[in-house]
Amino acid sequence: MLDSDKECCTILANLLIAKGVKRIVLSPGSRNAPLIVSFARRKEFEKFVVLDERSAAFMAMGIAQQSGEPVAVVCTSGTALLNYAPAVAEAYYQHIPLIVISADRPEEWIDQEDSQTLRQKNLFAPFVKASYSLPPEITCDDERWWVNRLVNDAVNLSVRSKPGPVHINVPLREPLYCLREVRDSRSEQVITSVSINTCLNEEIVKELSGLISRSKKVMILVSFGKPDSMLSSLLNRLSSLPQVIVLTETISNLCVNDSISTIDRVLSVISDEEKSKFTPDLLITFGGSLVSRMIKQFLRKYSPSEHWSLDENTHVADTMQCMTRHIRMNPVDFFSQIIDHIHPSDSYYHNLWIDCRAEATDRHEHYLANVEWSDLKAFSLIFPAIPQGSALQLSNSTPVRYAQLFEYNQIERSDCNRGVSGIDGATSTAVGAACVRRELTVFITGDMGFLYDSNALWNRYVPPTLKIIVMKNGGGGIFRFIQGPSELPELEEYFETAQEVDVEGFARLHGFDYYVADSEDELRKILSVFFRISDKPAILSVETPRTVNDRILRGYFKR
Amino acid sequence: MLDSDKECCTILANLLIAKGVKRIVLSPGSRNAPLIVSFARRKEFEKFVVLDERSAAFMAMGIAQQSGEPVAVVCTSGTALLNYAPAVAEAYYQHIPLIVISADRPEEWIDQEDSQTLRQKNLFAPFVKASYSLPPEITCDDERWWVNRLVNDAVNLSVRSKPGPVHINVPLREPLYCLREVRDSRSEQVITSVSINTCLNEEIVKELSGLISRSKKVMILVSFGKPDSMLSSLLNRLSSLPQVIVLTETISNLCVNDSISTIDRVLSVISDEEKSKFTPDLLITFGGSLVSRMIKQFLRKYSPSEHWSLDENTHVADTMQCMTRHIRMNPVDFFSQIIDHIHPSDSYYHNLWIDCRAEATDRHEHYLANVEWSDLKAFSLIFPAIPQGSALQLSNSTPVRYAQLFEYNQIERSDCNRGVSGIDGATSTAVGAACVRRELTVFITGDMGFLYDSNALWNRYVPPTLKIIVMKNGGGGIFRFIQGPSELPELEEYFETAQEVDVEGFARLHGFDYYVADSEDELRKILSVFFRISDKPAILSVETPRTVNDRILRGYFKR
Repeated sequence: MLDSDKECCTILANLLIAKGVKRIVLSPGSRNAPLIVSFARRKEFEKFVVLDERSAAFMAMGIAQQSGEPVAVVCTSGTALLNYAPAVAEAYYQHIPLIVISADRPEEWIDQEDSQTLRQKNLFAPFVKASYSLPPEITCDDERWWVNRLVNDAVNLSVRSKPGPVHINVPLREPLYCLREVRDSRSEQVITSVSINTCLNEEIVKELSGLISRSKKVMILVSFGKPDSMLSSLLNRLSSLPQVIVLTETISNLCVNDSISTIDRVLSVISDEEKSKFTPDLLITFGGSLVSRMIKQFLRKYSPSEHWSLDENTHVADTMQCMTRHIRMNPVDFFSQIIDHIHPSDSYYHNLWIDCRAEATDRHEHYLANVEWSDLKAFSLIFPAIPQGSALQLSNSTPVRYAQLFEYNQIERSDCNRGVSGIDGATSTAVGAACVRRELTVFITGDMGFLYDSNALWNRYVPPTLKIIVMKNGGGGIFRFIQGPSELPELEEYFETAQEVDVEGFARLHGFDYYVADSEDELRKILSVFFRISDKPAILSVETPRTVNDRILRGYFKR
Repeated sequence: MLDSDKECCTILANLLIAKGVKRIVLSPGSRNAPLIVSFARRKEFEKFVVLDERSAAFMAMGIAQQSGEPVAVVCTSGTALLNYAPAVAEAYYQHIPLIVISADRPEEWIDQEDSQTLRQKNLFAPFVKASYSLPPEITCDDERWWVNRLVNDAVNLSVRSKPGPVHINVPLREPLYCLREVRDSRSEQVITSVSINTCLNEEIVKELSGLISRSKKVMILVSFGKPDSMLSSLLNRLSSLPQVIVLTETISNLCVNDSISTIDRVLSVISDEEKSKFTPDLLITFGGSLVSRMIKQFLRKYSPSEHWSLDENTHVADTMQCMTRHIRMNPVDFFSQIIDHIHPSDSYYHNLWIDCRAEATDRHEHYLANVEWSDLKAFSLIFPAIPQGSALQLSNSTPVRYAQLFEYNQIERSDCNRGVSGIDGATSTAVGAACVRRELTVFITGDMGFLYDSNALWNRYVPPTLKIIVMKNGGGGIFRFIQGPSELPELEEYFETAQEVDVEGFARLHGFDYYVADSEDELRKILSVFFRISDKPAILSVETPRTVNDRILRGYFKR
């Protein structure tokens, strides 16, 4: 085949195929032309061409998140690469494998005022697992081996243990558009990173399982993660112990019997006097950032005497300020090694939580039945209406916080950009996620977030299986709810930036189906048709009163 | 007055006022609430609230570019700051003073999985003049003095010698919304950076002026810069010497008698055989990145024996690969010190260029008179129609390249983001620029650039004096013109991303006046009304045939 004459690009493309990278998001440019040629000419890749690099990278992240496979993003030199930064940081903290590939000028031209050139090498150092820079030419076998090795390293690292982004900078010298014949079946040297299980020695198994067996109050708290049936079944077994309660966030994607899956709903019915009864002796956590502020505040105030954090990384976070052990293992490895050694203890801790959950559910249902039209009311209708097998994408931070108040089992998985919790790429992430699923993807966002990432819809790939729900509530609901800003005269002008978002106008611009609901009756009626399969993506604008939502939500927590 | 109880924020706001910062672009957030409060409550600032930080920072850059004064941008923690990156890099290479202020969590919380937190300190190190991090609390007078000094340093550095961005990271500890009474007239310690002239010693003045006086062929080549009447008049005197020719780019904003202000137009009529006659013996350059590829290629091939680069920075670029002297001075200081010592030499070099210019102008007019409907034709009508005293904002890279082919004197200044030459923020820059001018700002962009930065129009500040012209030509004109991609089968899918941009839809979405022209006659008719003052901003879509423009432009250069 005729390929770019830049051998680096040939090796890169061949190796990504060999190492199982199937999807690539490319943004147009001139410096990256050799990369585009090498990737475009290999039919093994599914290719997405997206103009805005910020959106492109979030879209790639959504694809990688849903497929569980590494995705490459390819851009030209200059600020193009900087536009990747928000998604790369999110991928880093969300543990998603992204292979970031940037074209660059050769190093001798950096800072020589020759346009579209800035210091790209190591630009993402604070939030990639590693940065690589390829040589601009391959002049000998050693350089060929070097490039080969670097690309192997990069892909291996991005998927190994806790996945994450890596950055490969590719300096390219002019002329950029020359082609040469390459052997189609050229075989690159492939280095596989063998998957390794971690294990505990017998003594430690005995010690840790003993601690759980003897403890009266064990809390397992799970933040975000992807669906994992092995982990779910291990947690199911643990959850059957009288001394163990499992708390899962909505985006943990775990289904555990007799667990607390609506953390804030349950915590809000515990009175201050009772709180110490609910304090665990032993806390076990894994995942990443927590959505629930209430559980963080609870555990910082009512601290367990032991807190074990399961994290494969060398770095570990002490979110609750009471960590006593860092266990450098993934939760499946850890629990499967100790579970057979754990015995039930004489405890009412599990039931204490389950009783509390029952009370919280009653109060939740009672409050919801009588509440007026508002975001909370709308969410109570939306979640149960989402069809079986759908994936749910939630934006920051209002939608994901509301989702935490509801239980739903029909949804296959729920995700939200909680790595760094930005609003900047939620729509693009949802579009990417929807691109690799056959079933519906339902995306719920606020109007400000929708506006922020409106470029997400400017590409040819938005599938008709994507259903977008925009909560049109004047943006600042979250700020009205927080006690501080709600009392400041600056609220409307500086925090809410109350700006009418013309959701219908956007739907028209993109030729999407459009629905609007501004009352309970309307919403019920529309939800029965909105999720039907259509030949176009659909947007539903749910219009709720900006100045009521905060009162309703405060009321909910004061039940 | 009641201010945020974070003393850092009080000092920061007070000092920015004291040091003459008048305008601030704020993006909503929670962590930055104390900053918002301190800035919002000081009526000395003109405040702009913009949701998308990418757009906010480019807008701030446009304001700073046109006003010539430093502008502050304030954002919350997390990826918000990363969205500033493209504008910060552009400001760095375009030498524009931006005071980037980011809220952060206190350092002990970094990487503790506590949401919206990433490693912000020194994040912009490769493209700010300096990075500062304030202490999270002020607990003693020494810390008070420290914060005071850091802010003074930051603002001084951003405007001193070659201006540029600085980054001040502000860790803020909860609670974030408390207020306290502060003395309204509190006086911070203000440290002024005294403006310093640089000068040459007598011997060097003699040597350098002697070299210019004795040289037969001196070329002064100016890239981008702001209007500078002192510099213009110095260059006018130099340009009157028979051995000197001054070449200015469109965005140099200099008006020099008998100079070459349409570099590509003139270079394209010089045959290969004649080129060596045009080669300078001595080349003097200043400004920054050049738009014209032709002049760079010419000078790299036909190198002068001496190349002096005037640059106040310690770092200097050797764009033409033939630099012999770095003169660390600004051009006004330099030329004013040597100009009285320079004498005319016996040379025809100046006239050689001026004759060539006359021929180029003839050929230009002849070609334009007969050319069919196309981008080139459209530009030939647009530029002369722009009203006297307007400012022109050009996007990358097609509009600025076309602009280089035309002469216009009625436009007060022309700017383009040529620091790093991205397309990512041209519209936002134009909106910012328009915000600080009473007269018209005319912005010319391509359809892809318009789409990329469409968030620029989502704010309350777009003034009716902004007139936007979108060249709707299917995006990839530039790639069709470059020999490489135009021959690749990947052209349409991967380089042009030919996507219909619904310019009218955008105009409707924003309630702007809308015009469309798809022929010479239409355009003539519309231009007579388009520039009239209206109560709304206006968008004109100029629709030209995607597959014809490259042929027309090639024809122009083959005249």
